[in-house]
Amino acid sequence: MLESTCPVGRTLELLEGKWTLLIVNELLGGVKRFGQLRRSLHPISQKILTERLRALEERGVVKRTIYSEIPPHVEYQLTEHGQRLRTIFATMKAWELTAESNSRSQ
Amino acid sequence: MLESTCPVGRTLELLEGKWTLLIVNELLGGVKRFGQLRRSLHPISQKILTERLRALEERGVVKRTIYSEIPPHVEYQLTEHGQRLRTIFATMKAWELTAESNSRSQ
Repeated sequence: MLESTCPVGRTLELLEGKWTLLIVNELLGGVKRFGQLRRSLHPISQKILTERLRALEERGVVKRTIYSEIPPHVEYQLTEHGQRLRTIFATMKAWELTAESNSRSQ
Repeated sequence: MLESTCPVGRTLELLEGKWTLLIVNELLGGVKRFGQLRRSLHPISQKILTERLRALEERGVVKRTIYSEIPPHVEYQLTEHGQRLRTIFATMKAWELTAESNSRSQ
């Protein structure tokens, strides 16, 4: 039986939940600071955003860079692996839009 | 802000949760009766399997055929649209396996 040991299951688990997809979508637009992400993803909580970014970082999807200037700040960007999520999203979008055009033509 | 009005969000919502992926994976293997699905997806409950199959049917992913013979039985199969999930799964699998090979080579 397919468990989350299966690659597809693990990818779905990573992308599960509303916020992860929105965070990745924001980062597909380029490097963002934590504060920028929080504002554009309002009303996401600090806790959820921190957790999701950490999970994405652990999975090699997001890279975190700490700038120890005064004041210090942290930037987030998609890794090369993270950028390749674009292909999955494009495949899903095409799949969903085919369903819509099918249902309109019936 | 990307909401589940977005095609990618809707696709992820459909595939969310452990059982939907396992059901679709079983049906990628061909036509199945309800009882067959329940046995191969043990320990899924009758309620969950019924709900997920109905949701997949509503989204045009699964087709249900009722045979009113004696005894009557019901068969489930992927529609053409459902079959095209294979592409999404293949893209996800490739994506996940790239991550694994990257992490092994570091």
